[in-house]
Amino acid sequence: MIRRPMAVALVHHPIRDRRGDTVTASVTNLDLHDIARTARTYGVDRFYLVTPVAEQRVLVERILEHWHTGHGASYNPHRGEALDLVEPVSTLDEALARWQQRTGDDPLPVLTGAARTDGITFARCRALVQQHPLLLVFGTGWGLADEVFERGWTVLEPVSGAGDYNHLPVRAAAAIILDRLFAGEQR
Amino acid sequence: MIRRPMAVALVHHPIRDRRGDTVTASVTNLDLHDIARTARTYGVDRFYLVTPVAEQRVLVERILEHWHTGHGASYNPHRGEALDLVEPVSTLDEALARWQQRTGDDPLPVLTGAARTDGITFARCRALVQQHPLLLVFGTGWGLADEVFERGWTVLEPVSGAGDYNHLPVRAAAAIILDRLFAGEQR
Repeated sequence: MIRRPMAVALVHHPIRDRRGDTVTASVTNLDLHDIARTARTYGVDRFYLVTPVAEQRVLVERILEHWHTGHGASYNPHRGEALDLVEPVSTLDEALARWQQRTGDDPLPVLTGAARTDGITFARCRALVQQHPLLLVFGTGWGLADEVFERGWTVLEPVSGAGDYNHLPVRAAAAIILDRLFAGEQR
Repeated sequence: MIRRPMAVALVHHPIRDRRGDTVTASVTNLDLHDIARTARTYGVDRFYLVTPVAEQRVLVERILEHWHTGHGASYNPHRGEALDLVEPVSTLDEALARWQQRTGDDPLPVLTGAARTDGITFARCRALVQQHPLLLVFGTGWGLADEVFERGWTVLEPVSGAGDYNHLPVRAAAAIILDRLFAGEQR
């Protein structure tokens, strides 16, 4: 029984590079650890690492193994606890299928993007979390490719700071968004 | 004339390691970039990188140079814009002195720590930002050493998530705290 069914996906393909071309980004150890720790802090139930590159999914499995049962498990058990959430998958559709299987309910994908103008508010998203198992989708590189947004899924309004500069690392954006969605009761 | 005088310090000494001993952490390229980009997004005016290790301050200057005038400046100008905020200093006291010099006013240090129970609320801190040039202080490793907290400076309440797990990366904690302090008007 999942108390608050919520998952995060970090997409490495299809994403945009700085010229707007659709590319595949490499998985980084850093994104894996940072977002897993943040997700664990906010009670997220699953963190799907999306990459079509089989070798990189194997690499992720090896990192998880290190922190679960290898040297890392004794060095810092908190890391293993966070990385328990991580599941490498090949596509966003596979993430959705796994999440559906896990929750037994239709998941609601919610896309994030720093330049979107068609997003729902954080307040609306907090209400949706109570109704559906959400899959909050982040893109690496310069963000999710247009073809992802063209699927007609719900989009979340961007995080805006104090001015025009809007180049948050995906690790920071994920932290801020999870805080806005799940720590609202503290404010 | 600074609109909202606010600075961040990232301390690499004195901090605690996982056993609670006071140590010096290495500067990482990642903390530098991530926190600079987040700080720039939220209109922070200065980002003091505190390390007593002279070689590491030189390394930081070289990284800044690369993104200001080297290859990085043409590859991604947004990075240089964020890194403009960064100033390497040897101690927290030097950061305070520089920040005082820059603002012409007495700075108010505000310390952060995941395990503190003596902190002021985010609401109170938002009020203080209107009155003083704040210096928001983050520790790397396992957080600021006790000797920093023993100076009697103001402490901010910890970021708490959805449960007992509280092992946010400093990059994520900085992002969440700046969002809570400076994006409150959106909620």
